Amino acid sequence: MSLKLYWLDGKDGHRFGPYSWRIRMALAHKGLEPELVGVKFTGKDRIAFSGQERVPVLVDGEHWVADSWAIATYLEETYAEAPSLFGDAIGRGAARFVNGWADSTILPGIAPLIIKDVFETVLAEDREYFRKSREARFGKSLEEVQEGREERVAEFRKRLAPLRATVAEQSFVCGERPAYADHICFGCFMWPRGTSPFRLIEPDDPIYAWRERMLDLYGGLARAAPGHPL
Amino acid sequence: MSLKLYWLDGKDGHRFGPYSWRIRMALAHKGLEPELVGVKFTGKDRIAFSGQERVPVLVDGEHWVADSWAIATYLEETYAEAPSLFGDAIGRGAARFVNGWADSTILPGIAPLIIKDVFETVLAEDREYFRKSREARFGKSLEEVQEGREERVAEFRKRLAPLRATVAEQSFVCGERPAYADHICFGCFMWPRGTSPFRLIEPDDPIYAWRERMLDLYGGLARAAPGHPL
Repeated sequence: MSLKLYWLDGKDGHRFGPYSWRIRMALAHKGLEPELVGVKFTGKDRIAFSGQERVPVLVDGEHWVADSWAIATYLEETYAEAPSLFGDAIGRGAARFVNGWADSTILPGIAPLIIKDVFETVLAEDREYFRKSREARFGKSLEEVQEGREERVAEFRKRLAPLRATVAEQSFVCGERPAYADHICFGCFMWPRGTSPFRLIEPDDPIYAWRERMLDLYGGLARAAPGHPL
Repeated sequence: MSLKLYWLDGKDGHRFGPYSWRIRMALAHKGLEPELVGVKFTGKDRIAFSGQERVPVLVDGEHWVADSWAIATYLEETYAEAPSLFGDAIGRGAARFVNGWADSTILPGIAPLIIKDVFETVLAEDREYFRKSREARFGKSLEEVQEGREERVAEFRKRLAPLRATVAEQSFVCGERPAYADHICFGCFMWPRGTSPFRLIEPDDPIYAWRERMLDLYGGLARAAPGHPL
């Protein structure tokens, strides 16, 4: 068995792709250790075999799977005897809801708070591509997008209410033990952790303590990754 | 075995309490048929035995439970052999997340769009109490709160993105069959259905089709309740 996880390379070993982190955690949850293969923003030919341009891509022996949700369900079915990512069918259904929430709330909430910092973390050869593509998306300069974040962060924190309410009542999103819905949300926070010194979450926020618990999992796997400790 | 569910009475048999509807659906999910006991906003002495003032309250023989989440977990444990509301521990954990999302997103999103209509639906003897308490909460008149809803509803619909993404991919929040996370979200929509002719969800929205499926469950239980068909 050989497992390869293709994910984004940043400078100085910073790997901050939020979707890739979902899968890195899911693999560790299953007790699996992949070989990590770096991909550049400007080097997507490396995953051309997958017929698309987005990381993560998982290669498992003769098979490959793209898209983090598809990879997670692949891992759950293929490594069914290892600890479950979803629990039963109901848990899998609800995890998809959390996936939709994270994608529509956490990630778009974080982006305008750290995008210039992300730019500073991409590889030198990716900088031009990153600035151009992101500025086209936002319709203004990265500097302008990030401006005023000290005031705007309060609104972002407010939007995290469902996550806060959950981890104030139980240790993890999935109850007393972490599972894939935790990895989904946590992966989002590995994006700022890998790129930005800006404080998104206050230490007295229950989300902060939950994130600490996630950083401790699997022998401190995520904590060991280069990044900003805030 | 005698089951009594205390929930809010509205005029002409309209029963629109979103938390009570979560439990009404959860009971039907478990194959249980409670006796429904109406409670007025101004008649909370009827549930004084529970030491608090919020509905729903479930009385099961010698026991009572207040708070919809606590009632759902009580039902799951007490009627363990009936169809599960949560699936396993992971599913229960994730359902709590959905609970937090619905409480912080759907309900506060709906309130300023229908609050005057709710007022028109409460019992005559509750009107004064309702207007006074809600106007104090909003800091303006019910008419002012509801004003401009035709423009504001677009923002509300946008906030439902996680629910939309989920039920666009699978029949129910919990996968191919409904479970408690569905009842949580659906209960929220029974509030406007019971009180307001205002269209919150467009017919081409995947949420609309999901809501129709929910209305069909348990022999059309929710569909049979007095309300606005939109």
